Formats: sequence, C-alpha cells, structure tokens
Amino acid sequence: MIIIGEKINSSLKGVTEAVKNRDVDFIQQRALEQAQNGADYIDVNCGTLIDEEVEALPWLVQTVQQVVNKPCCIDSPNPLALAAALKVHKGQPMINSITGEEERYTAIMPLVKEYQANIIALVMDDEHGMPKSAAARINAGAKLIERMQADGVPVNHIYIDPLVQPISTSSDMAIVVIDTIKGIRELYPTVHFMCGLSNVSFGLPKRGLLNRTFLTLCMLAGLDGAILDPGNRQMMSMVIATEALLNKDAFTKQYLKSYRKGLLE
Amino acid sequence: MIIIGEKINSSLKGVTEAVKNRDVDFIQQRALEQAQNGADYIDVNCGTLIDEEVEALPWLVQTVQQVVNKPCCIDSPNPLALAAALKVHKGQPMINSITGEEERYTAIMPLVKEYQANIIALVMDDEHGMPKSAAARINAGAKLIERMQADGVPVNHIYIDPLVQPISTSSDMAIVVIDTIKGIRELYPTVHFMCGLSNVSFGLPKRGLLNRTFLTLCMLAGLDGAILDPGNRQMMSMVIATEALLNKDAFTKQYLKSYRKGLLE
Repeated sequence: MIIIGEKINSSLKGVTEAVKNRDVDFIQQRALEQAQNGADYIDVNCGTLIDEEVEALPWLVQTVQQVVNKPCCIDSPNPLALAAALKVHKGQPMINSITGEEERYTAIMPLVKEYQANIIALVMDDEHGMPKSAAARINAGAKLIERMQADGVPVNHIYIDPLVQPISTSSDMAIVVIDTIKGIRELYPTVHFMCGLSNVSFGLPKRGLLNRTFLTLCMLAGLDGAILDPGNRQMMSMVIATEALLNKDAFTKQYLKSYRKGLLE
Repeated sequence: MIIIGEKINSSLKGVTEAVKNRDVDFIQQRALEQAQNGADYIDVNCGTLIDEEVEALPWLVQTVQQVVNKPCCIDSPNPLALAAALKVHKGQPMINSITGEEERYTAIMPLVKEYQANIIALVMDDEHGMPKSAAARINAGAKLIERMQADGVPVNHIYIDPLVQPISTSSDMAIVVIDTIKGIRELYPTVHFMCGLSNVSFGLPKRGLLNRTFLTLCMLAGLDGAILDPGNRQMMSMVIATEALLNKDAFTKQYLKSYRKGLLE
C-alpha cells in the first residue's frame, strides 16, 4: 500500500495556527511522526489560508523536506500555489488533484507534465459532475485516464480517486466505490488508486471501525493507496494484516516485523 | 451473516470435563451466552469423547435446547452419534459435515434427507482429497452441490465450507478461499457458505487481527456464514460494520443498535 500521511492539513486543529505562524517545529514534528509510522508521501494542504496559500504551500514543502526524505503530496486546487510548491519540491512529487472538468484539467495538466508528477485524478467531469453509479464512475475514470495518457502521462503515474461518500446518506455508497475500483482495475491493471476513507462513515458513530473495515474491503477490490493518519494503529494494523492475507507480504515479513515492534493491534 | 457459536466443543478447555460430568449448568451457560451474543446456531461437538459420543451428543442437544430457543449445529463425523442427536433435536438442525468422499457421503446423506437438515459440505472428495487450487475447490464444490440437489437437498440448505488453511504454510491460502467463495457464489447465487476462520492465522502472532480481517475479505467475496465465538467483540464488530458497508443492514439499524448497546469495538 502507498500511504499518504494526511496530518499536515490546515483543516485540522492546530495546523492553521502553525502555518500562519510558520511554526517550523510543529510541522517538522508532524512530518517526522508520519514518516516514522510508514507514510510514503506527506500531504501538505493549507487551503483554509486562501490569501497566503501561494507563499505558505512552498514553505510547507521545504519545511517538511528539511527533515524527511520523502516526497510530498501537494494538495491544492490553486494552480499558482501548486506551481510555487512544485518549484521547491525535491524528488518526484504527487499532485492532489486533477479532474475531467475542463477548467481544472487545463490548469493542472501543464504542471503534471513539467514536473513528471504523480497525479491524483478524481472521477468527475463537467458532463456528469460527481457520477452516482459505479458504471458512470468507471466511465469517467476511463475517459480521464485515456486523456491523460494521450497528453503523455504514464498510466502508472495516475492515482484514481473513486470519490468516497457517506453510507449514511446513500446506503450503497461503499459498494459503489468498491465496484468502481474493481472496474477500473480490470481495465487498467497498472493504474494506481488513492482515496480518503473517512467520508464513508460521516454521520455514524465508531467511525474508525467503519473506516478501517472499508479500507480492507477496498484493498480486496484493488485499492493500492490511501490518504490516512499513519499513526492510527488499528487502521495500519489492518492494512498490514490485509496485505499478509492477500499474499502481498512475502513470508509475512512486514507483518512479523510490525508485530515485533509492538505495532499490531 | 449466519453465525454458529463454536464454544461447546470438547476440544476447548473445560468442555470435555463438563460433558464427562454431564455438567448441565456449564453447558447451558455457554449456550445462553452465545445466543445472547448473536449466535444463530449453537455448535455441539464432543468428538474427543469418542467412546461415549453416541450418548453425549444427544445429551448436549437436549441440554442446550432446554434453555435456548435456537437450532444446533450437530458436529460429528460419526453417523450413529449424529442420528442419536438428530432424533432429540427440536427445529431444523444443521449437520456438520458431509464431503464428496463416498463413504462419508453415503453415511450422512440419509440423515440429511430424513431430517431435512441444513448441511455443511466440505469441498473435498476421494479423487482430489483436499484440493489445492481455487479452481479445483470450485469444481469439487459444484460436483457436491449437483449431487446433493439430485438427491433432493434444496440448494439453500447447503452450506459450502471452502476449507480454510494457514497462510503461514502456503502464502496464497487466504486468496484460494476468497476465490473459491467468489467462484461458487457466481455459479450458485442461493447456496450458503460456512467456515471457521482461525486456521488462516495458525503459526502467526496476533491471530485475532488476521482472523477478523480475513472474515471481512471473505464477506465481500460472498461468505454469509461463519463458525466463531460470538463473544469475541472485535470480530463481531467487524461483521456488523462489514454488513453496514455492504448494504446488508437497512438504515444501519443493526450497526446503531449494537453501538447503543456498547458492543462495537
């Protein structure tokens, strides 16, 4: 599994203040913790500080990469902020995110190409908005993958986000995501997936239980990436157990290593 | 999910003594606890007391059904013990188990028919023993289902056991079971499944984590029954969360009810 650590996001408590004050220690601590807990990418998002995002986002990238030898997932809908952050990023970045919406696509694509970035692609476009059914999401995803490939992006740089929504508002929403992953995985065996999980449990109690159970189900469908808190032991334990069960952990080496470190719950 | 409570089995600590001493209180306590925790069937097994199984198994059935208004899963390879237990059983019993092995099949089938029992059927036969691949297990399962249907057993009385084996001895064993369930579910949409989970984690630490994660994966593949300890809160919480996610719990009613009772972990 490719894990993006989600904890440097200005919508989270304390982070807005830390970014505003350019609190290097706070940000670096979060980056280090997430890397130590197994994050492959560190997400950086300061979307709530809209007036200063163009300065703050590159500051976040540099602050993180001073202490952590990991790429960032640069998370903004603002092409200017993305451009400024990409400019200072070391290594191959991930951009979060593009869609099939014309305005967004044409604004983001030049950056993807310039930096040969990995790119999270949401299965939505102008024609269908956020499609409801799995079939429509698979269709939107396939169109987006085809277009990006035609624009020179290798399929294995693309991370499809199947758009997780709450089961409390529509009871088949988890199944829609599972079927979307299955369908796109069948069509494109080497594309990646990336999604946040917590939307699925919005409005329900014991959200962690639903989120980690959902992650396991999505992994069987073909999900190979998730944005989450890598410090969430129960969630990470299930990721590691699922990889062992799905024969993606040779000799259960990672499972046993995590056990010995006392990380499995 | 159809849950069989596994805790009245003479291979478990204390149960052999209780059966030997015909300890009514011990057995009834276990039966009540399991029923309260959500068991649909109470498994009764006294296979370790081989000399007195023909007397002890019907005693177990009667002792359980004195306090619990649930059917039993009568668990023995011995046709005489099964016959004696079935004779005193109230309601529609489940028999554990039949196979495609000629001797076992011909010994058990008359009892299945006489009592119109639900029947757990292991995907093995004389020709292939316990088949290794999913394809061979699907084939063995299909042959067994066809034969039982020809013998007058309705398909929805059949509970296919896909034969869970340890991933520590062969790393694809969980996938073999998942694919077996998927394959048989496609061929027979109304057949049931039943399996024990704990074999999957044999030889590894933190077995509960692997067992419950495996159960969730099997449920996505089509598993609708499991033999387990219904007092295992973490396991049962995952069953309930998985049913909510797979849209098998209308309005997340069971999930919310379990939450209010403080049962979700």
